[in-house]
Amino acid sequence: MKAARFHGPQDIRIEDIAEPELRAGAVAIDVAWCGICGTDLHEFLEGPIFIPAAGHPHPLSHEEEPVTLGHEFSGTVTALGEGVDDLTVGENVVVEPYFVCNECAPCLAGNYHLCVKMGFIGLAGGGGGLSEKVVVDRRWVHPIGDIPLDEAALIEPLSVGHHAFVRSGAGAGDVALIGGAGPIGLLLAAVLKAEGLTVIMSELSAARKEKALSTGVADHVIDPSTENLAERVRELTGGVGADVCFECTSVNVVLDQLFDAVKPAGVIVNVSIWSKPAVIDMQKLVLKEIDLRGTIAYVRDHAATIKLVQDGKVTLAPFITSRIGLDDLIDSGFDTLINHNETAVKIVVHP
Amino acid sequence: MKAARFHGPQDIRIEDIAEPELRAGAVAIDVAWCGICGTDLHEFLEGPIFIPAAGHPHPLSHEEEPVTLGHEFSGTVTALGEGVDDLTVGENVVVEPYFVCNECAPCLAGNYHLCVKMGFIGLAGGGGGLSEKVVVDRRWVHPIGDIPLDEAALIEPLSVGHHAFVRSGAGAGDVALIGGAGPIGLLLAAVLKAEGLTVIMSELSAARKEKALSTGVADHVIDPSTENLAERVRELTGGVGADVCFECTSVNVVLDQLFDAVKPAGVIVNVSIWSKPAVIDMQKLVLKEIDLRGTIAYVRDHAATIKLVQDGKVTLAPFITSRIGLDDLIDSGFDTLINHNETAVKIVVHP
Ligand SMILES: NC(=O)c1ccc[n+]([C@@H]2O[C@H](COP(=O)([O-])OP(=O)(O)OC[C@H]3O[C@@H](n4cnc5c(N)ncnc54)[C@H](O)[C@@H]3O)[C@@H](O)[C@H]2O)c1
Ligand SMILES: NC(=O)c1ccc[n+]([C@@H]2O[C@H](COP(=O)([O-])OP(=O)(O)OC[C@H]3O[C@@H](n4cnc5c(N)ncnc54)[C@H](O)[C@@H]3O)[C@@H](O)[C@H]2O)c1
Repeated sequence: MKAARFHGPQDIRIEDIAEPELRAGAVAIDVAWCGICGTDLHEFLEGPIFIPAAGHPHPLSHEEEPVTLGHEFSGTVTALGEGVDDLTVGENVVVEPYFVCNECAPCLAGNYHLCVKMGFIGLAGGGGGLSEKVVVDRRWVHPIGDIPLDEAALIEPLSVGHHAFVRSGAGAGDVALIGGAGPIGLLLAAVLKAEGLTVIMSELSAARKEKALSTGVADHVIDPSTENLAERVRELTGGVGADVCFECTSVNVVLDQLFDAVKPAGVIVNVSIWSKPAVIDMQKLVLKEIDLRGTIAYVRDHAATIKLVQDGKVTLAPFITSRIGLDDLIDSGFDTLINHNETAVKIVVHP
Repeated sequence: MKAARFHGPQDIRIEDIAEPELRAGAVAIDVAWCGICGTDLHEFLEGPIFIPAAGHPHPLSHEEEPVTLGHEFSGTVTALGEGVDDLTVGENVVVEPYFVCNECAPCLAGNYHLCVKMGFIGLAGGGGGLSEKVVVDRRWVHPIGDIPLDEAALIEPLSVGHHAFVRSGAGAGDVALIGGAGPIGLLLAAVLKAEGLTVIMSELSAARKEKALSTGVADHVIDPSTENLAERVRELTGGVGADVCFECTSVNVVLDQLFDAVKPAGVIVNVSIWSKPAVIDMQKLVLKEIDLRGTIAYVRDHAATIKLVQDGKVTLAPFITSRIGLDDLIDSGFDTLINHNETAVKIVVHP
């Protein structure tokens, strides 16, 4: 079968590899669509980062580069391994793409997403969504009913947004401010709107400001290069400030602005991945009693996330900006995202 | 009456000033003992900081320097203003030393300690505990029963510890790590022990390490200059890490160590006041899903704090390292705390 495999930085190859073998407790899936994630771009440009380098096999997958890429994918069940009796061949599903150890303290505490050996299918081994077929343990397979398969490829990043929402502790009626309207900021906004929050977004790029408004996920979009973000947020909240903020840019000045714009006793959830330390104003953290919270991936978020889509509370189609084949992965996919990022939200690949 | 008044940096004078007048809704108190706080030292060395500078009266007290100092005090009720009928002349009390506006969003949300105009009695005006008499609105006066008056002067910083505990969300059975065994770290440890936590403290100074052990507030004291703090904490917690950490030094390397030593999904409460920004490892905040929380002063903490002392769960006497008169404030009080800080915990002043 065809698979996109990472051999090193700038070296992703579309290759013919053996089909994965079905095993007990697992599910064979024909991949329908797979989204390209910022993490895939980072691996392509500067990897291996999450990918296990040659000579350093992942402790759970026992694989090392070359590995198949793709962790945001949907597909159709083609076969069930021994002991799997609660899925049906022909059923459409998405995958929560984890390797976890089930033994460490976080796993035992139910925080499997914080597993000390955690790896992602499609980065750490185990095949991936940028190939025709994949075999995944039953635990990580979530049925999606009649959600269209292309849209379902966005459930993985939507779950990131759902988990960030859960981490924030916010609820209906609250006002949220999101720094950055990239794919993650936009999908998070979609979750927050679905959950009944008012959503304010801060974004510089014209195309993304437009997307935030045209999709209806933002009630207000503010350009911090032309307006004072914290002042505008206070205007929009009767002088109070945002109940909860989400950092989705990894830009320090954005984090600073969230410290200003959040209300006293408010929460800031940092969703972005930083490649360098952040400088933060501890005086504000203390005197405003801010909670600054990290959030990573998802844990028991898929069911609720899928339901938001099934119930029509989140509409994913407008976030798919192009559909390509696996052979165009580098030229049409990665190239667009690296060189013309702001015009795209999600590019989904049909292998 | 005699009062210690701030006239400018390095210029605190013991002066004779008029006695405060009783007003409706307020309580006249003869001050018994007043603790010297790190904030008082900062004001003495580099003030005015929280003290309203000349020409900039505080919006609620309408006072500016010179102001009377002292916000950690106990005393005896000598007279009750019109409308106050739930206290008795002769009763012993402590003061929760606030000015708040009752109108801003935090006040209306019950977070009076985050009032946008908040000031402290003894810094922002309203007299203070470093004088013979003070008149305070009933709301801020808390009866202490038979707690000795000298020990009661420590209820204010103990309430800071109680509030930090509440902010942490921790409870009995949890393991806490405190960075810094100064007065705040030690009193916080006393609250945590009283609440049933295991307490590990990190401290460099020999005198303070000894104090943490001899008072019994710490179960383990680790010197991070001779041992790897995070490794030791993991050893003490079966590899897990601390459930909750408290930063009480304002030293960046200590904050870094807490990021290492806290368990995944753990909480770090920053109690210390920073005069510069902190550099933090966002990668760890995100991948371990750390909550970094600010805490300031106290809000509805005094009743529970006083009860801990009345019930004998916190013993305050060992934290009083000397008792002085008001005339010795600078020579014996401030001088000791500035030049021989580690030998002292709390110096209490009898005006
Ligand atoms: N925590 C997790 O589990 C998780 C999962 C996936 C992605 N991420 C991270 O989330 C972050 C966002 O991902 P993405 O794919 O949306 O990234 P992206 O780079 O496409 O989007 C960032 C957006 O921020 C905007 N921006 C930049 N500077 C700004 C400024 N000063 N003010 C306002 N907006 C500004 C950009 O214009 C862009 O639209 C990344 O750091 C990514 O690594 C985290
Ligand atoms: N949030 C609040 O409401 C509030 C209230 C009062 C005080 N504070 C702040 O709390 C902090 C602590 O107050 P304090 O009076 O105890 O201060 P302190 O300076 O007396 O104590 C700090 C302690 O940290 C120790 N320390 C320094 N470097 C260390 C290191 N690398 N490793 C381990 N220990 C180290 C010192 O030896 C000292 O014992 C201060 O910043 C103060 O301003 C906050």
